[in-house]
Amino acid sequence: MNMNPRAAIANSSERLLQVNRLREANDSQANALLADMHPAEIADVLEALPQDERLHFWEFVGVDKKGEVLIETHDEARAELIAATSAKVLQAAVQPLQPDELADLMEQLPDKVVAGVLAEMDAQRKQRLETVRQFPDDTAGGLMDVDALVVRADATLGAVLRYLRGIRRRDGGLPEHIDTLMVVDRIGRYEGLLTLSDVVSVKPDKKVSAVMIRDIEPVKAMTSATKVARLFEDRDLVSIAVVDEDDYLIGRVTVDDIVDVIREEGERSIMSTAGLDEDTDMFAPIAKSVRRRMVWLVVNLINGFIAAWVIGQFDATIEQMVALAVLMPVVASMGGVAGSQTLTLVTRGLALEQVGYANLMQLLLRELSVGLFNGVLLALIVSGVAGVWFGNWVLAGVFAIAVIINLVNGALVGTLVPMALLRVGIDPALAGGVVLTAATDVIGFFSFLGLATLVLL
Amino acid sequence: MNMNPRAAIANSSERLLQVNRLREANDSQANALLADMHPAEIADVLEALPQDERLHFWEFVGVDKKGEVLIETHDEARAELIAATSAKVLQAAVQPLQPDELADLMEQLPDKVVAGVLAEMDAQRKQRLETVRQFPDDTAGGLMDVDALVVRADATLGAVLRYLRGIRRRDGGLPEHIDTLMVVDRIGRYEGLLTLSDVVSVKPDKKVSAVMIRDIEPVKAMTSATKVARLFEDRDLVSIAVVDEDDYLIGRVTVDDIVDVIREEGERSIMSTAGLDEDTDMFAPIAKSVRRRMVWLVVNLINGFIAAWVIGQFDATIEQMVALAVLMPVVASMGGVAGSQTLTLVTRGLALEQVGYANLMQLLLRELSVGLFNGVLLALIVSGVAGVWFGNWVLAGVFAIAVIINLVNGALVGTLVPMALLRVGIDPALAGGVVLTAATDVIGFFSFLGLATLVLL
Repeated sequence: MNMNPRAAIANSSERLLQVNRLREANDSQANALLADMHPAEIADVLEALPQDERLHFWEFVGVDKKGEVLIETHDEARAELIAATSAKVLQAAVQPLQPDELADLMEQLPDKVVAGVLAEMDAQRKQRLETVRQFPDDTAGGLMDVDALVVRADATLGAVLRYLRGIRRRDGGLPEHIDTLMVVDRIGRYEGLLTLSDVVSVKPDKKVSAVMIRDIEPVKAMTSATKVARLFEDRDLVSIAVVDEDDYLIGRVTVDDIVDVIREEGERSIMSTAGLDEDTDMFAPIAKSVRRRMVWLVVNLINGFIAAWVIGQFDATIEQMVALAVLMPVVASMGGVAGSQTLTLVTRGLALEQVGYANLMQLLLRELSVGLFNGVLLALIVSGVAGVWFGNWVLAGVFAIAVIINLVNGALVGTLVPMALLRVGIDPALAGGVVLTAATDVIGFFSFLGLATLVLL
Repeated sequence: MNMNPRAAIANSSERLLQVNRLREANDSQANALLADMHPAEIADVLEALPQDERLHFWEFVGVDKKGEVLIETHDEARAELIAATSAKVLQAAVQPLQPDELADLMEQLPDKVVAGVLAEMDAQRKQRLETVRQFPDDTAGGLMDVDALVVRADATLGAVLRYLRGIRRRDGGLPEHIDTLMVVDRIGRYEGLLTLSDVVSVKPDKKVSAVMIRDIEPVKAMTSATKVARLFEDRDLVSIAVVDEDDYLIGRVTVDDIVDVIREEGERSIMSTAGLDEDTDMFAPIAKSVRRRMVWLVVNLINGFIAAWVIGQFDATIEQMVALAVLMPVVASMGGVAGSQTLTLVTRGLALEQVGYANLMQLLLRELSVGLFNGVLLALIVSGVAGVWFGNWVLAGVFAIAVIINLVNGALVGTLVPMALLRVGIDPALAGGVVLTAATDVIGFFSFLGLATLVLL
């Protein structure tokens, strides 16, 4: 699957056209434009606007849409929208949300609003909300809808149809994203799935037990969202049952939530490589951004000074041969670039559950070989350039050896560091690059300047 | 949504346990293990194995699963599995695949196999395959299933039920992932969607036209997969109709394909930052990896030598004050780190269609401000350290100014480069980092060493 950058531009202008149109609109036009847009589109457009304009247009979003828009907005921008909304409006906006959505929002809502929402809820809804709130939001329990429709295995499909029509008469419709019904036993334990596709196509006198799917295992409520997402991907699911520790059915996770999980995971991996959170708001207040990014800069600065200290150990050598100062960043950066290739590959492998102790040694040997071969090839190029440039072939030789050492070093660190970080509970996507840079800078400078001190002086 | 690294380890060991169990199994145990696994799991496990073992266990995968496993495997590993399989087995394995899956595989299959598959296909399947093959695989047309079930708006829901039961009698079941039927007019033009949820719950004497959904627009076959994925995310869809230029219904895209698109996009963005393809095989032949990675190393090497050349212009200055050589990598790397934060934020914004000419100026001003503030804060720290270290406060001042300049430079380049790259049709995730590093190295070294030459000598 290739991303086509030109297609991306075309798409981009389309969504951004909405932004432009909104900005050029007078109040009543803005109202009409926002009324035509879906909540997710409104969320996108608001996030693309600087703060003052964002809050201005937020006013025009109908209360009936505000709840959904908040759900679709990244945490940081969401907090601002919430802060700019009166308790009364907030309460009206979030009241109609699904329990899992509401549970997500609740920690960001003012206490007063939460109290108000709970006070107006009927007992069933309140209980459903409490069920979801028991579980962290990155688990199956936190993601689940609690409105699963359940049937019994000994019912006929004709009875199921009558049951569903009855629900519609009573509630005006079925819950959203129903593609399957859950089959439970007398006391509510999960037994299997019944797809609507079977309900509509199997003869009405057949029993549920004759067509129900038994080979899709339910997930436990505490199963991580990541793992549930893998399951959806691997089995092409649309929904799955969520059960408690004793196999009682408590809800279902649907694919629309999983799509968001997968998107967030992708965003998160990318953002963490730059020490950013996936919920970062492009137009967050400057003071906030300054503070957050400073943390990352200081972490990296420590790296920088360690490298500087290593260089400082060889100041006498550099004084005698300035060419070393000219070439040393090349040694460090080549190790860093090669190492980041290994690091990226291994980090992805960890995320896909394809790298572990089971194959670490083979992977390491492979990466070391690739590093060694590329090191030798690169050494030939760089030492040729350096030899001609400085007319000093001993220097060129030292340069070549240092490059080889640092490429092998990059492969070593790139393979082992992400595993090690994961083991101590640190996200390798966040910290892997920092550790790698430190290692390739230190070893790069040390091997080049150290060898030079030994050989050249 | 926070990824929990410890949970990730637990997950990881689970999948990797399968790898271990397989490796320790004798042939009949391996057979049994693989028979128990789903195609996607088999694909994962095979990808986690070094080549020789991978090909060994591939033999044990049943012909009935081999086709699905190939579909779930990344391109590079897939090519090897295909190369290691006889034409006869391949043909039997891919014959039962869906037309969109088959279309994806076809370019990698040997001509002989393609010819064999086509020869054995009935006319309807061949025509469906041809329909899908007309469109690139990163478009709605390339992703679509061509087995949409169609009904007419003036039919009653009772008639629809009878129609669906008839299909089941004839074909043994409905097509996979059917959650909606497509409503078309007399000549096959798309009119709307009818959800199975309505089919099962609305009274049988109601007409399709009374409940069909008209407000979900179909997508054109040439719409990019990325855009279709956005639509699924924004509207929480399970399937959508695909139409040709004249609005004739030609197929449907289902969410299981979209889940893969989103996952691949995420993988792709991460892998491209290291110049890797998302289809890269961890255990590809070493010679192949050496060649591929060399390209990226050479691109980055050019950067390295440009930076070295800049340093070389100031060799006389460095000779007089070696402390410059010690500190200069700090200036370059701080600009690079700050710039990569901006770059990452802007690249994500472009991917989410939230950055464009519409808000570029505001974003640029914001990033420049953040860069300036952080530059000043960082300059205070680094110049303090340098002043104490070298006992030279003029040097410390020059260092401080260079750091500020390079952080602002990083913000400038990080904001403008991804937009510019996209404009000329280059993926900013791939090339953004290279250009940024070149810019922050050159400006970092030049400003620091240049200022030092002016002020200190």
